[in-house]
Amino acid sequence: MSDDGPGARRESPRTPAENAELALLLEVSATPKPGNVDRGHDLSDLRFEHFLAGAVGSGEGLRRAESGAPVGVAFERAVRGMRTQEGGNTQFGCLLLLVPLVRAAAAGDPTASGVTDVVESTTVADAADFYRSFEHVDVAVSDPPEDFDALDVRRGSDAIPTLRERGLTLFDVMAASDGDGNAAEWTGGFSRTFTAAEDILADDGPVLDRISRAFVRLLAEQEDTLVRTKHGPDVAADVVRRAAEARGDPEAVAELADAFVAEGINPGTTADVVCAATFVALERGVSV
Amino acid sequence: MSDDGPGARRESPRTPAENAELALLLEVSATPKPGNVDRGHDLSDLRFEHFLAGAVGSGEGLRRAESGAPVGVAFERAVRGMRTQEGGNTQFGCLLLLVPLVRAAAAGDPTASGVTDVVESTTVADAADFYRSFEHVDVAVSDPPEDFDALDVRRGSDAIPTLRERGLTLFDVMAASDGDGNAAEWTGGFSRTFTAAEDILADDGPVLDRISRAFVRLLAEQEDTLVRTKHGPDVAADVVRRAAEARGDPEAVAELADAFVAEGINPGTTADVVCAATFVALERGVSV
Repeated sequence: MSDDGPGARRESPRTPAENAELALLLEVSATPKPGNVDRGHDLSDLRFEHFLAGAVGSGEGLRRAESGAPVGVAFERAVRGMRTQEGGNTQFGCLLLLVPLVRAAAAGDPTASGVTDVVESTTVADAADFYRSFEHVDVAVSDPPEDFDALDVRRGSDAIPTLRERGLTLFDVMAASDGDGNAAEWTGGFSRTFTAAEDILADDGPVLDRISRAFVRLLAEQEDTLVRTKHGPDVAADVVRRAAEARGDPEAVAELADAFVAEGINPGTTADVVCAATFVALERGVSV
Repeated sequence: MSDDGPGARRESPRTPAENAELALLLEVSATPKPGNVDRGHDLSDLRFEHFLAGAVGSGEGLRRAESGAPVGVAFERAVRGMRTQEGGNTQFGCLLLLVPLVRAAAAGDPTASGVTDVVESTTVADAADFYRSFEHVDVAVSDPPEDFDALDVRRGSDAIPTLRERGLTLFDVMAASDGDGNAAEWTGGFSRTFTAAEDILADDGPVLDRISRAFVRLLAEQEDTLVRTKHGPDVAADVVRRAAEARGDPEAVAELADAFVAEGINPGTTADVVCAATFVALERGVSV
């Protein structure tokens, strides 16, 4: 566990699947994370314990990803397990980022190039399993482009014949998901994920505080997909502005957390990215 | 998931190992749990995130228990995994209760008689693995009786030849641990565990609130082993009295939580029992 100089990484004492499950738990625990469920905040119908149960239920799918199961198979299993609680969709987006990252880590390469290899290798079968996953859970999404209507994810398994007809892989589906923050990670080398992971590693103090600060930094830098989907572009832009103003002032961030919960503003996509970043930071040896 | 009348139980959507891991997470999250780490309290060197990592690390040992591994093997593996965090001993006592309960649940009989069958069937090899587990972690224990000095758990593996010489099973070791709350569960049909589980099932509202109330009830009814070991019998008796006074008054319980943390009073054995009770309640279908 010694630090052998710049670039040296401590090894994680946990497997990739364990780090992914722990990332889900640390993400929901880090507080304040304005607008999201965290150690200090519940939403009206979505409570802390739903995320705990969601993380435990995701474990089997994450272990399958670690063992080399196809991304779609592992993801569908993780989502199905996540859904064994009464809160509804807790960690769908987190899992969409974590599953390929676990695959890359298990292959010894949890880097931008390693995870890009994983997502670019996805198949039509992975895309079909992704669509099947929507049958387990209600995910807030915006309308797809017109020529993608038959592939609206809300169609679930009914979209599978069209996927096969057009030969679309899961990577192709992500590439067509314009303006979705998680899809942008898939097609852009998980760039915000890796940047936020380095921020967490470079920061000081308890890991939950580091994750909270990384969350606010991400929120202040780019519009949140879920906020834009639910509240429109003006509110999404306003959230970025308010996060940028509060950033660095713990009291202001705490006030923002209470305000966003009261206003029903839930930047869930930013939580997905900080969860994925936490996984990468754990793989790179951040101390817990 | 219908209730078919008195005695009918909803089935758990999770496996026994998943319920055990979730019980570890719900236990540490339930607040207030006076004197313990919970969603609202950290201790100085023992923080919430240490328990999250401890729960995830315990998973592999709990899954081995579910698959029928010997109690000692599963327990040693769970403790070793639990220890992959910087906080030290987080859930040793919880795991000592959970491992036989998971075995009993996996065999289809998570009842007093089912778990008694499991603990009474333990062997000298299980006892040896139990002693090995103390090498992973510092556990606060009191001095053993004089004729048990060679079997002080703090000797770790060095005690194994004596165990073998005397032919002591893990159940025998527990039966000789006078005054230890967890050993009393092992040798007494897990009676406080099952009673508290029924309390949690019969209670109303979110599961974390139910666990908090069950904790205070347990604390008000019997001296906590860890408090007595660290602070002596007078403080242990005082804790019972103060818990009984506060019980039922949420504000008084919240004040007690802050007071115990400030006074360094940490009723960890009561937390172990409520964790085991949470597992049983999950197996019996309490909703999360």
